[in-house]
Amino acid sequence: MADHITSDEAAAIAARYGAAEGEFGHWNAILATMLAHRSVRAFTNQPLPQGTVETLVAAAQSAATSSNMQTWSVVAVTDAATRAKFAEWTGNQRQVNEAPLVIVWLADISRAERMGEARGQMMETLPYTEIAITAIIDAALASQNAALAAESMGLGTCYLGSLRNQPEQVAAILGLPKGCFAVFGLCVGHPDPARPSPIRPRLPQSVVLYHERYDASHEAEGIALYDARFTEHQRSVGLPQSGWVSRVMDRMGRMRGLSGRETMKAALAALGFPLD
Amino acid sequence: MADHITSDEAAAIAARYGAAEGEFGHWNAILATMLAHRSVRAFTNQPLPQGTVETLVAAAQSAATSSNMQTWSVVAVTDAATRAKFAEWTGNQRQVNEAPLVIVWLADISRAERMGEARGQMMETLPYTEIAITAIIDAALASQNAALAAESMGLGTCYLGSLRNQPEQVAAILGLPKGCFAVFGLCVGHPDPARPSPIRPRLPQSVVLYHERYDASHEAEGIALYDARFTEHQRSVGLPQSGWVSRVMDRMGRMRGLSGRETMKAALAALGFPLD
Repeated sequence: MADHITSDEAAAIAARYGAAEGEFGHWNAILATMLAHRSVRAFTNQPLPQGTVETLVAAAQSAATSSNMQTWSVVAVTDAATRAKFAEWTGNQRQVNEAPLVIVWLADISRAERMGEARGQMMETLPYTEIAITAIIDAALASQNAALAAESMGLGTCYLGSLRNQPEQVAAILGLPKGCFAVFGLCVGHPDPARPSPIRPRLPQSVVLYHERYDASHEAEGIALYDARFTEHQRSVGLPQSGWVSRVMDRMGRMRGLSGRETMKAALAALGFPLD
Repeated sequence: MADHITSDEAAAIAARYGAAEGEFGHWNAILATMLAHRSVRAFTNQPLPQGTVETLVAAAQSAATSSNMQTWSVVAVTDAATRAKFAEWTGNQRQVNEAPLVIVWLADISRAERMGEARGQMMETLPYTEIAITAIIDAALASQNAALAAESMGLGTCYLGSLRNQPEQVAAILGLPKGCFAVFGLCVGHPDPARPSPIRPRLPQSVVLYHERYDASHEAEGIALYDARFTEHQRSVGLPQSGWVSRVMDRMGRMRGLSGRETMKAALAALGFPLD
């Protein structure tokens, strides 16, 4: 799979980390596609090719799933009125209205519940925190395959975690039964070449990768380095140069950073995930 | 990227669904790699090529992360004694001892907490359920890129959700600070050609893919079809022909299916995730 690689390893790694970081000695078309990922927030109105949704779902189903329980489902939303509601609930993000497709990823334990009902068996494990975690992980692994599959087909994607701003309204508009929770959306469409999306640099590996045991003793230097790289990235794309640390402080330090999601525990209970 | 595809679309889809299901009209090396996924449970003792971990982490960091908060980390475990402990805690799964590398994926909000401490800022959002969900999703998206990257390099992987059988012991052996939770492991190694792992068929798309709104009214037929296909798969690989439905009933219907993970809520609280 070494053919058709459009960027070399060193350049792709430099873009991913916001600095020349060398090479790791492995390169192929899949790694090149992954490293080139960016969230696309501007789409053309070109329709998706036939079979796109089915291809993405086959890719998603090919991901691992805990004990093959397959505790996830998707709703493929193309309807403009539903997407307009999603856009409204997610802070008027333009790409939600522009993308011809929003795939909503569901942690879905309702299927198991229905299977139990049909067989007269009480499904004892479903209220537990562990089951909710398993279903959320299943949905996330599946979605990441779908996102990468879309990118391999020349499409762009943008995750929409902000669907969790309104979990009960999302459940209502999609007709979700009890035991279904919309974990996030994934916008899919043709990226608009006139409004390109940049690659956002990530933390140096020294900050996220530990060997044998966790050891954060040198993390402050890595974070300072990244803050400078991220500020440079903001400058290069014309954004206010706030740096990364101040974004973490705003988003995770203050309650307003939750955008109302401090009610998630109650919402999950209402949707059939009491987190026992 | 249409070169070097070793299987055609129809054959890959048939293997994925356990039945001829036609084609969706899109095919490339990335889709072929995804569709060929299987969990590998037998590895050779061949060491991993230099740079493997760094390549997998670069792939992982290239996945989307909620608001670029990057609330995950990994511990790359090669130490045989630690892997032996993991094997013990996860029901003596042979591949944990055989794999030269187990990457442990952490939902990690301790970094944000340390950043707040260094700046004298209380991190108000960290105890909330939403933050735990975000960190778990971040870790899962990252890991799926790493798993696929490994497969693209000719390696095999096996997720190890059973690390959640002993969350506090895993945290202790890895020296995790408060605010770190080992979501799962990922075994990585060279698949042993003498003990090949089969592709496990998945549910028909009709059962997991809905359009515009959730509608399970025809799901029973799809599940019955899958149960027959799964039983045939079990027969073909020499396993007891229990079918899929009975596995779901065993695993999700009875408390013993949780393998002790009914204590997850308390364990998460002890690890710094009170799920407020």
